Amino acid sequence: MASALPTTTARIAVLGASGYTGEEVVRLLSLHPSFTISALTGDRQAGKPFYEVFPHLMTVPQMPALKKIDDVEWKDIDAAFCCLPHATTQEVIASLPAHIKVVDLSADFRLRDVSLYAEWYGGEHKAPEIQKEVVYGLTELHRQEVANAQIVANPGCYPTSVQIPLIPLLRSGLILTEDIIIDAKSGISGAGRSAKQNLLYCEAAEGVNAYGVGRHRHMPEIEQGLSDAAGSQVRVSFTPHLMPMSRGMESACYVKLAQGVTIADLRSALEGRYKDDTFIHILPEGQAPFTHHVRGTNYCHIGIFEDRLPGRAIILSVIDNLVKGASGQAIQNMNLMFGLPEETGLLQQALYP
Amino acid sequence: MASALPTTTARIAVLGASGYTGEEVVRLLSLHPSFTISALTGDRQAGKPFYEVFPHLMTVPQMPALKKIDDVEWKDIDAAFCCLPHATTQEVIASLPAHIKVVDLSADFRLRDVSLYAEWYGGEHKAPEIQKEVVYGLTELHRQEVANAQIVANPGCYPTSVQIPLIPLLRSGLILTEDIIIDAKSGISGAGRSAKQNLLYCEAAEGVNAYGVGRHRHMPEIEQGLSDAAGSQVRVSFTPHLMPMSRGMESACYVKLAQGVTIADLRSALEGRYKDDTFIHILPEGQAPFTHHVRGTNYCHIGIFEDRLPGRAIILSVIDNLVKGASGQAIQNMNLMFGLPEETGLLQQALYP
Amino acid sequence: MASALPTTTARIAVLGASGYTGEEVVRLLSLHPSFTISALTGDRQAGKPFYEVFPHLMTVPQMPALKKIDDVEWKDIDAAFCCLPHATTQEVIASLPAHIKVVDLSADFRLRDVSLYAEWYGGEHKAPEIQKEVVYGLTELHRQEVANAQIVANPGCYPTSVQIPLIPLLRSGLILTEDIIIDAKSGISGAGRSAKQNLLYCEAAEGVNAYGVGRHRHMPEIEQGLSDAAGSQVRVSFTPHLMPMSRGMESACYVKLAQGVTIADLRSALEGRYKDDTFIHILPEGQAPFTHHVRGTNYCHIGIFEDRLPGRAIILSVIDNLVKGASGQAIQNMNLMFGLPEETGLLQQALYP
Amino acid sequence: MASALPTTTARIAVLGASGYTGEEVVRLLSLHPSFTISALTGDRQAGKPFYEVFPHLMTVPQMPALKKIDDVEWKDIDAAFCCLPHATTQEVIASLPAHIKVVDLSADFRLRDVSLYAEWYGGEHKAPEIQKEVVYGLTELHRQEVANAQIVANPGCYPTSVQIPLIPLLRSGLILTEDIIIDAKSGISGAGRSAKQNLLYCEAAEGVNAYGVGRHRHMPEIEQGLSDAAGSQVRVSFTPHLMPMSRGMESACYVKLAQGVTIADLRSALEGRYKDDTFIHILPEGQAPFTHHVRGTNYCHIGIFEDRLPGRAIILSVIDNLVKGASGQAIQNMNLMFGLPEETGLLQQALYP
Repeated sequence: MASALPTTTARIAVLGASGYTGEEVVRLLSLHPSFTISALTGDRQAGKPFYEVFPHLMTVPQMPALKKIDDVEWKDIDAAFCCLPHATTQEVIASLPAHIKVVDLSADFRLRDVSLYAEWYGGEHKAPEIQKEVVYGLTELHRQEVANAQIVANPGCYPTSVQIPLIPLLRSGLILTEDIIIDAKSGISGAGRSAKQNLLYCEAAEGVNAYGVGRHRHMPEIEQGLSDAAGSQVRVSFTPHLMPMSRGMESACYVKLAQGVTIADLRSALEGRYKDDTFIHILPEGQAPFTHHVRGTNYCHIGIFEDRLPGRAIILSVIDNLVKGASGQAIQNMNLMFGLPEETGLLQQALYP
Repeated sequence: MASALPTTTARIAVLGASGYTGEEVVRLLSLHPSFTISALTGDRQAGKPFYEVFPHLMTVPQMPALKKIDDVEWKDIDAAFCCLPHATTQEVIASLPAHIKVVDLSADFRLRDVSLYAEWYGGEHKAPEIQKEVVYGLTELHRQEVANAQIVANPGCYPTSVQIPLIPLLRSGLILTEDIIIDAKSGISGAGRSAKQNLLYCEAAEGVNAYGVGRHRHMPEIEQGLSDAAGSQVRVSFTPHLMPMSRGMESACYVKLAQGVTIADLRSALEGRYKDDTFIHILPEGQAPFTHHVRGTNYCHIGIFEDRLPGRAIILSVIDNLVKGASGQAIQNMNLMFGLPEETGLLQQALYP
Repeated sequence: MASALPTTTARIAVLGASGYTGEEVVRLLSLHPSFTISALTGDRQAGKPFYEVFPHLMTVPQMPALKKIDDVEWKDIDAAFCCLPHATTQEVIASLPAHIKVVDLSADFRLRDVSLYAEWYGGEHKAPEIQKEVVYGLTELHRQEVANAQIVANPGCYPTSVQIPLIPLLRSGLILTEDIIIDAKSGISGAGRSAKQNLLYCEAAEGVNAYGVGRHRHMPEIEQGLSDAAGSQVRVSFTPHLMPMSRGMESACYVKLAQGVTIADLRSALEGRYKDDTFIHILPEGQAPFTHHVRGTNYCHIGIFEDRLPGRAIILSVIDNLVKGASGQAIQNMNLMFGLPEETGLLQQALYP
Repeated sequence: MASALPTTTARIAVLGASGYTGEEVVRLLSLHPSFTISALTGDRQAGKPFYEVFPHLMTVPQMPALKKIDDVEWKDIDAAFCCLPHATTQEVIASLPAHIKVVDLSADFRLRDVSLYAEWYGGEHKAPEIQKEVVYGLTELHRQEVANAQIVANPGCYPTSVQIPLIPLLRSGLILTEDIIIDAKSGISGAGRSAKQNLLYCEAAEGVNAYGVGRHRHMPEIEQGLSDAAGSQVRVSFTPHLMPMSRGMESACYVKLAQGVTIADLRSALEGRYKDDTFIHILPEGQAPFTHHVRGTNYCHIGIFEDRLPGRAIILSVIDNLVKGASGQAIQNMNLMFGLPEETGLLQQALYP
């Protein structure tokens, strides 16, 4: 139920609005009571009406046409969602006026250690000074820092789905840091809107395959968060799969219990940690989460199971990769940055079927 | 952008809430500022929490448990969405207290002529007196009658997609009544949630087939509306197909132009007729509508094309069968019945991809 | 049941083997007892092992690597399947040695009238002399000419699905030439393997849209065949749709019966015409064809229905667009060109589910 | 390439031919040179032509109508594929004449220890004497016993995909028995053809969920095989998922290397073990297997990867759950039981796309 909300708080620019995460920011903001879209950029499509790029959004009134980033009048803008590709983002953000609040959906500022960035993304970081000010925006776990941030690095989709359940368990020492194995499955929208052969309907429908086995770029991001939580270096086994579906992500985390810890302890720790969080749901015993149940939403559903292997637990976490895994969490963060309730504009229910 | 809206206007019962149209009413009402769900019925599932039937809606706060229709306290209810199966609905509606406003999503009251009902639905109509009071709720075309109605028969999905473009053209005599050929395609949710072998994923995915060829029950409903518009008896050729997708409907209407009429005339007539209607969009010349663009929404997109056959036009109309074709239009009607703006609660954008 | 068949009759080159129709020729020939694949070409992928382009075919023994067309040793080749793009094909075929039998899967030689080619394909035909010798290979209807041909133009997928049912009916005068309306639906593989945004899984899954409305290139090919059959110029209304599935095609043909003709007459005409044809099945009364039932096969299933509009019939025809609509029919033609039973290598049953 | 093969060796009955595994046996046998289908049973559908149950197989000539098991003339039958549900199979097989060779696709005889059967399948085993004679038919690993068997228990789909890569590695001591974690993904056909709500297209499409977490019935079957190989009791963590696709299965096996063992050792062990096996392919380094590449085939593709966690390996194995995971392996076994090459009738290539 929407209640009466304040009139516009912020004028928003969406940088890189022609991709899926940009589109998703626009879709979600179309029902947001306090943010107005004032600029949309897409360098290669500059000059086009937005509905030529995303015809389904012809129904949003008063959308600005796409323009080049260089043509944005920044004095009329309060905040930006940065949906640009990895590597191109650092310089863009470095060039923005200081008054602009930024949520960056790329990977460019997620790794605190810029040498890790260089190692995994194949090039020197171009804005190491900015990196130091950036807050990593896993909202439920960094709410206060986000509220005070000027620039937020929005987490990756896989890291979001993994860290939400595992960080509290590592912090409290309920699970071991060793031998954490994550088998993850993502909808195809996670790979973006660029025309690539392996993403064609005929190539991707009705089939499943792993990719990036042993060396996916979300590994260091996951390890950064888990290591912080554990207070020691954590390494994970992480294998992502491409699923024949547009949206949705499941991370199956196979973990070892600390001495004397039970499944009930895990459940009660996670229920306690997230009991006041609108978007995190710990499912009843025996119920496995289903990506379908969070489609189009900012929710994360978590199931906790005893493993047949003694001393082990199975933790299953699902999100919509484009919402809680990207644009929804970005808006959740921006809400906090403007002092709004974090749920603002994000309470749509799942589209099912 | 939502604006400040009045607090609750009506307490709502959803009868038959365990099917897809019932679920969709609940999903859409979860963001409605003026309607509160006060009762949910499902005779076979009575006693269960609603989220056991639709786990994705566990995130809607304060949902009542399912109960039997006979157990509803009608004095605490102002209006009902009736999502029951065909044939069982007549007697239920006949038994409701007089103060209850009803939008009926079944086919039971769509055909004014009860003998037609008997012919196509295989049994005598059990509430012919009520039939006389019922308003057929194709909203954009019967807005005034709907606003004053106590009981509205919500149109079928196919009839909605066909009548929106064709009724204005027949009324104005721009197209002929003869030789109207409709090839329609529906997502599988149109067939409901009952477990039937032909609706299994393995049977329905990756294939297309026609069904009900020459004798589908939506024919007389379409013909009723088109005949009214033309002022003479219209018969149509109508062939529905099941598509391998959950939601969405396209009706391709192949029609003959009246003497001297051009495609531009059709376009200008439809643009004129629907220029003030939020949910109806006439697409720019040359653009074919795509079901994907209306998924999850109450919109109807219409494309108008010259046929290669001289004197003929092709009119393509798409809706989401569960929204504008069912629960969305039902809410649109109920909004009018309570004096609310018809768009209330219905401005979500399409989920894409 | 395979029976003992002669040893290799022909050494085959597949030109343009990196697309779906090329792949499908290879897949089907892998079980062919009389044709051996001796050369595979793919200009941009020359030098690669074939399994790098189509890893699923790593299991076919002794496949040659891809090479450039110019590097084929034509003296070691008896026949070629030409799976090249439209427009590039004419010159390639013109340059082949005279002893090579050719089945061309492109559109380049399908239109007898080269001025029609120029009109619809946007350029002068570059081999009009060859055009005169080419046989149009709708196998069941041109079996004798195909058997004697040196070059066969393999029909388009839509034209195959439409002409098989309609040509016999037009030849015998059972249906009228006017007002033939065809609403067709194709799986996405019909659009090829090139990376285009609209063919991405996320864009094409779970949605349906028409394309090429009023002006698809298969129109003149359909009209050429139907006009020949009728003995007078036939024009058709033809609207293709893209379906969210990899393979399969349905053409719904809405036709007018000649004076005094009944549905039973249509049925008996088609049953009679195709009673000896392995790949054509006229379905029992009341049964609609389903694309799923012909997936991966060379079959065509046809359903015949009375329309609700008096004097009209509905004829539904399904094929697999890549098999009977392309590579399967190409092999069927090549079999005849080598004096083999046309079914050779083509008797695999549908993959279901 | 098919070569000349002997005429019919065996007259076959398919018991329970109305489900997907029964259908798949029929599909594959339609091209088998030495087996003739002489009886098809389906108790509830007895009397119907087979094509009413599976219309796509109307194209197989001379298929017998469905009958009751009790009505089979066993003197005219040499062998049976038993595709009946779990639990009903024991008594049926116990009642067959002694001359009938049987491949049983149910789970009824897969567990050597009948007390394990009782524990996991919820009832006393009704034919423990027969159990003792049954050979477990994981073909590549029990070829000799299968060839001499009268009754073969065909392995489950998950156990097939897991045991093929892991058994040789455990036998040779290259991987440890502890901490084997298997995350598996199956197409929906694995759940059968019965109409269940959760298998409806609308429920299963575009979503992923785990099921049977911590307690799936294929666990003891997997552990039986792995324990035999290791020479000690092995327990596994096994989590199956339902994927939105009809066919295909991937098992991701996360294993620990024995002291001093490298990934190259695993690769060379598996390549060595399976170098003469037509249906097992060890993929080149760095290539992940894709279920799409084995669709409709009897192949198993295996990828071997170093894990980021030191001392660990990731082994990915894909099959078509209905072919190598059921009916294809059943035919492979029956071929051996009749002294035929095991590949007979099974060399179709994958349907792609």
